[in-house]
Amino acid sequence: MPHLLFRGVAAEQLQAVAAPLAEELAAICECGTDNFTMACLHATSVFGSLPGEPAFAFIEIGWFERGKDVRTRFAQAVTRYVGQLSIPEIEIVFHAYREDSYYINGEPVEE
Amino acid sequence: MPHLLFRGVAAEQLQAVAAPLAEELAAICECGTDNFTMACLHATSVFGSLPGEPAFAFIEIGWFERGKDVRTRFAQAVTRYVGQLSIPEIEIVFHAYREDSYYINGEPVEE
Amino acid sequence: MPHLLFRGVAAEQLQAVAAPLAEELAAICECGTDNFTMACLHATSVFGSLPGEPAFAFIEIGWFERGKDVRTRFAQAVTRYVGQLSIPEIEIVFHAYREDSYYINGEPVEE
Repeated sequence: MPHLLFRGVAAEQLQAVAAPLAEELAAICECGTDNFTMACLHATSVFGSLPGEPAFAFIEIGWFERGKDVRTRFAQAVTRYVGQLSIPEIEIVFHAYREDSYYINGEPVEE
Repeated sequence: MPHLLFRGVAAEQLQAVAAPLAEELAAICECGTDNFTMACLHATSVFGSLPGEPAFAFIEIGWFERGKDVRTRFAQAVTRYVGQLSIPEIEIVFHAYREDSYYINGEPVEE
Repeated sequence: MPHLLFRGVAAEQLQAVAAPLAEELAAICECGTDNFTMACLHATSVFGSLPGEPAFAFIEIGWFERGKDVRTRFAQAVTRYVGQLSIPEIEIVFHAYREDSYYINGEPVEE
């Protein structure tokens, strides 16, 4: 946690920026980089965001809510790094997980 | 937005109905078709919904909540078009995004 | 429903435990195994959970909320079965669907 799931970004592209992005996000969240995962989802676009249209990245972030200030700085860091990959349209949605509904090795994060 | 993510529907199948479906959804939502994305998720079914069983489509829709009437007309339009693809079982879940947790090019949709 | 979506677990691995896991989950939920789907998501890890690092499984469960006791027993059963696949780190998140936002063949589960 946080988990970042990318659509519209190739893994090879993301690879180029993943380590410095993780460093910056860890600083924003005041935690270690080993808390983060980033993965590129395999999906086939069928409408919108097609080849020949301006590149569009959609990024889902699953985390425990950290408030507006952290959230905005987080979104802006992700946007800046993904923007370096020549992707002009970047949309990000945060999913706030409930701590009583998140289990690590069988134990809830919060009772 | 809205973003439609399909499982159990092949991209080639969806291609056949995507444009008229987008037109109908845009009319229901009173917005342009360029707001919509549709993508087929790559996943391997391991239990339920296996080859040889009746085809089952699971469709996740991420959007900003528009209320029950629009939601039901939206679900019924998606069901009708996907039903044309000889898929007898269709389940749809709507995820209502929070506007303060959705960022477009680094800016929240709503402060 | 419930729908289990796995990352970091190969379909061939999951195949080996899916049927007994479904039996146990059905007993916990007091429903039939035909309510369950399990699928492995295709995604490429780019940061965290890379080859050479300890295997990490992330499992998303979409369902209607059944309360803490059922949720914990459910998570522990999934953790136990996935742990048999030599995966030492297992994180599970439950997404509670709203019944008025879940449609089966065009009809909401709850008005």
